[in-house]
Amino acid sequence: MMGAGNLATQLSIALVNSAVPVVQVWSRSRLSASTLAERIGCDWITDIGKIDKGADIYIVAVTDSAIQPFVESCSFGDKLVVHTAGSVPIDILANHCSNYGVFYPLQTFSKERDIDFRNIPICLEANSEANLTKLRELAICLSDDVREINSRQRKQIHLAAVFVCNFVNHLYAIGERLVDDKQMDFSILKPLIAETASKATHFSPQTVQTGPAIRNNIAVMQSHIEMLAGYPGFQEIYRIISNDIYLTHNKLQ
Amino acid sequence: MMGAGNLATQLSIALVNSAVPVVQVWSRSRLSASTLAERIGCDWITDIGKIDKGADIYIVAVTDSAIQPFVESCSFGDKLVVHTAGSVPIDILANHCSNYGVFYPLQTFSKERDIDFRNIPICLEANSEANLTKLRELAICLSDDVREINSRQRKQIHLAAVFVCNFVNHLYAIGERLVDDKQMDFSILKPLIAETASKATHFSPQTVQTGPAIRNNIAVMQSHIEMLAGYPGFQEIYRIISNDIYLTHNKLQ
Repeated sequence: MMGAGNLATQLSIALVNSAVPVVQVWSRSRLSASTLAERIGCDWITDIGKIDKGADIYIVAVTDSAIQPFVESCSFGDKLVVHTAGSVPIDILANHCSNYGVFYPLQTFSKERDIDFRNIPICLEANSEANLTKLRELAICLSDDVREINSRQRKQIHLAAVFVCNFVNHLYAIGERLVDDKQMDFSILKPLIAETASKATHFSPQTVQTGPAIRNNIAVMQSHIEMLAGYPGFQEIYRIISNDIYLTHNKLQ
Repeated sequence: MMGAGNLATQLSIALVNSAVPVVQVWSRSRLSASTLAERIGCDWITDIGKIDKGADIYIVAVTDSAIQPFVESCSFGDKLVVHTAGSVPIDILANHCSNYGVFYPLQTFSKERDIDFRNIPICLEANSEANLTKLRELAICLSDDVREINSRQRKQIHLAAVFVCNFVNHLYAIGERLVDDKQMDFSILKPLIAETASKATHFSPQTVQTGPAIRNNIAVMQSHIEMLAGYPGFQEIYRIISNDIYLTHNKLQ
């Protein structure tokens, strides 16, 4: 496992829990490497020159911009090397590896939050059928939802994920701030957050849109904009999303 | 029950399931009134003049702008009348009712999706302690989370709810559109949607923000903006939210 961040941590734990041995963790950071290695009970290093040559698969789970420099500084021979990034094409590995692919679990990970991989979609891509088969064998140890996805599709999925995960979380943070600032507890919003997400897994979100914007309830929207006077960023988000909801549902775009 | 929309439908069903009898449904629409009345096994009317005088509590669950005209066209005498709207102050009922209040279940409702009220926060307000007590007695039949919330607080909660429910759902719809348009299935995003929501109920959303914007990963954001060339509305949302994430987390606002 090359990397010891959020994804590397959770993927390593899931592998070990599925009886797939992780032989070694590499990270630039001694603390990150040793912490993860201790959790899964394996060797750890910070020196790239000491990477174990005996593994079947090398998982490069470093930050996007570090993938290429990292791979260029290693010699993997004919071993299978995969990266785990949504937005990075498979070809980034082509110049320095003869057997390579992508192993992209579509989920949001935190070091502190262990997660069940069984329903996480794992998106695979490889430079040969033989390598794809190897990756599929690994992936089905972890998940029941293994898919072959090319680099162009994966990038689109990653873009959609930014909206439904990163941006959604920011809207949660705005909701949290708005109740906090009036000395109320964020817990009051939690059942609504849970039900909104649950609804999206049972209905097409486009068909269940509710709220002032889709009804074009100008009085409520105007009053909300005024209540956001102290929050110019939130005010702009309110305007832009309300406008887009209205346009989308009135087939104006 | 005055109204037969999403909230009126689910609230009526929850009341009946909790052994609180709903004696009559009124709606302007014959179809809505009769459909709901049939589901809960009670009388229904469309004529305001025929409203049953024998109920203990009259729940006005009509659209915000219809509350005042509706109440003005009825004579409730000294019966307890409540509305169910997040953004509407209690005082809207003051001129035409002597006993009044607000009964606001903070949740998103659909007619077709029956929902467990036990963990839904029910926000109560009343014009007297006696009326508040009556509403509390009703609310605890349905939910374990009953709170006294004044009109100013309720309006702020409703504003926060627009962000964490209505706007979040629109982001889900954008994610759905982005995968649909490339012939991929929305189901691939569902575990991510579920986990993002679940995370928000265990951690403060502000502290678990991830994605290109918080890392200020300009290359990925620029490439996403280009991928959204055919969707000017989505492009603007992408820019505005990314900017707000960056500013918020770098304490620039």
